[in-house]
Amino acid sequence: MTHDTVRAMRWRDGALELLDQRLLPGASEYLRLTTAPAVAHAISDLVVRGAPAIGITAAYGVVLSTLQHAEVSGPEKSQRIAADVALLAAARPTAVNLCWALQRLQPLLEDVDAPDLSERCLGEAKQIHQQDIAANHQMGELGAAYIDSGSSVLTHCNTGSLATGGYGTALGVIRTAYRQGRIERIYADETRPWLQGARLTAWELQQDRIPADLIIDGAAAWLMAQEGIQWLIVGADRVAANGDVANKIGTYQAAVAARHHGVKVMVAIPSSTLDMDMPDGSQIPIERRQPDEVTAVLGQPIAPADCGAWNPVFDITPAALVDVLVTEKGALEHPDKDTIAALMAT
Amino acid sequence: MTHDTVRAMRWRDGALELLDQRLLPGASEYLRLTTAPAVAHAISDLVVRGAPAIGITAAYGVVLSTLQHAEVSGPEKSQRIAADVALLAAARPTAVNLCWALQRLQPLLEDVDAPDLSERCLGEAKQIHQQDIAANHQMGELGAAYIDSGSSVLTHCNTGSLATGGYGTALGVIRTAYRQGRIERIYADETRPWLQGARLTAWELQQDRIPADLIIDGAAAWLMAQEGIQWLIVGADRVAANGDVANKIGTYQAAVAARHHGVKVMVAIPSSTLDMDMPDGSQIPIERRQPDEVTAVLGQPIAPADCGAWNPVFDITPAALVDVLVTEKGALEHPDKDTIAALMAT
Repeated sequence: MTHDTVRAMRWRDGALELLDQRLLPGASEYLRLTTAPAVAHAISDLVVRGAPAIGITAAYGVVLSTLQHAEVSGPEKSQRIAADVALLAAARPTAVNLCWALQRLQPLLEDVDAPDLSERCLGEAKQIHQQDIAANHQMGELGAAYIDSGSSVLTHCNTGSLATGGYGTALGVIRTAYRQGRIERIYADETRPWLQGARLTAWELQQDRIPADLIIDGAAAWLMAQEGIQWLIVGADRVAANGDVANKIGTYQAAVAARHHGVKVMVAIPSSTLDMDMPDGSQIPIERRQPDEVTAVLGQPIAPADCGAWNPVFDITPAALVDVLVTEKGALEHPDKDTIAALMAT
Repeated sequence: MTHDTVRAMRWRDGALELLDQRLLPGASEYLRLTTAPAVAHAISDLVVRGAPAIGITAAYGVVLSTLQHAEVSGPEKSQRIAADVALLAAARPTAVNLCWALQRLQPLLEDVDAPDLSERCLGEAKQIHQQDIAANHQMGELGAAYIDSGSSVLTHCNTGSLATGGYGTALGVIRTAYRQGRIERIYADETRPWLQGARLTAWELQQDRIPADLIIDGAAAWLMAQEGIQWLIVGADRVAANGDVANKIGTYQAAVAARHHGVKVMVAIPSSTLDMDMPDGSQIPIERRQPDEVTAVLGQPIAPADCGAWNPVFDITPAALVDVLVTEKGALEHPDKDTIAALMAT
């Protein structure tokens, strides 16, 4: 299936190759990276985005660090690798998967002089990658089971193969439900300012020959009122212990509109996106990016020079607006602190 | 004041000049038009937009028709002018001001052989134009009175000098309230797909040296949750007799978000935008435009080729979501069929 051939990242001949998502859908080119700072820069600069995808990418970044610093040893090697890890961790603030993936590698970095350090790190990174793909397929099955035959769904941002190790979180649920014949129509928010919906989700679905219609972000409520949408299905960059959801700006507004129209809201995430140390959404850091992402589109100015813009790129959807939280460990209706804690303990 | 020098349309030397809003803010150029079909095309093609502005433009279009067909007389002249009027009326379907303005000229067209036909039509068109500007200033005063000092406001689309005869409806209220020191911060939705907020509203406010920040349309709810917005202030293309509001796509979603956050909603319109023959919003024709307005931005593709899009360019906000309806005749809190009928009878 085509969706198994699109990969946001791949390890090849001792280097990490990232599909440059800034160029999609116009061009499909892989960047070849050989150092952790280059990987951190690629994450900051949105070569790769999507919470699970940047976690996996950061894990491969650690492998590159161990390879680059193979000539030194002891405390110096430790310090250099630690500096790279810190750089990777700071590349973007909102998604928790970044730190989660780095923590998974941490035990291996206790012994930097182990002769097979790089191999072991690569093995762990590949396992993180494969587990993410498996989790996506599991979420696809669990989430699709909630969707009645003949449903129309709306999604926001890109949560597909390009945002994950492969297949997708929310888009994985949509893919599975579509193949099971449950979905009649798919609508995708274009997702300004970075247009992940128009540039990436529409492209992925076309690759899979799954029909979908784009809408502008401001049309979601009218779509719900006019066309009968059953589900809003989104991913997340971080979910707090109480179920509050940090996701791409616009998610909260779509969820408010969904509640107003009786449209159900599904959030699909790997459990690595759950931050059990974060009691609720109020403390999740929300990345603000430059005004020029709003005042220009793909480099072309759309507003007068020196025009100001308010550009937080994530928002928080309170748990109360979430009908179903789907993870690879199971799905929770009306998730809250207790049911999430119980799920994570399984 | 600068805002009095920006005009969407002007009559000069026997022709209608329209500021080509498709080129703003990059270039400020007037197109010179001498026939009604050219005016109708300019309206369809968004050289000029905004309900009051296209009404005024259509009125000048009738003047051009009388000038162009001055060589013929009797039934032939009548038919030619009627055909032009029909063309103008059909240029865009949603705004009622277009037909309202044409109806104002209709009595003069009863006697097409009157020697001063063109002069009388021009006089009426100029009166429509001047009355619209006066109505805007009146609405500015009436609407501003509702805004407490220190307020932050959000607006959608462009409702300023460019959308009217001059000054503006919703943006007129904001201008007046800002000059009265009532407004602390102004936010403008960029207003995809045509970006009236980014291209036109931001430009107009800059011309007036009124500071404002752009947001993407999907950020309105998060802005309300985070920054404390007091008013959502919008215009309309048509308001039904019960107070339902047809306005630029995205208005309904912003109004739903406003209600969710206790943000009040003000709709500012000249009474010519009220359609007393339309009992409610369900029958107002909603213009759908081509998918490529969604799949491209300013001519640059943002989605894969052949990507579908759902592109209604207006939506209906039910009267129940409107806190104040401001017209030049007076302002109505929680407008309904009875209070609107009483206002229109004054």
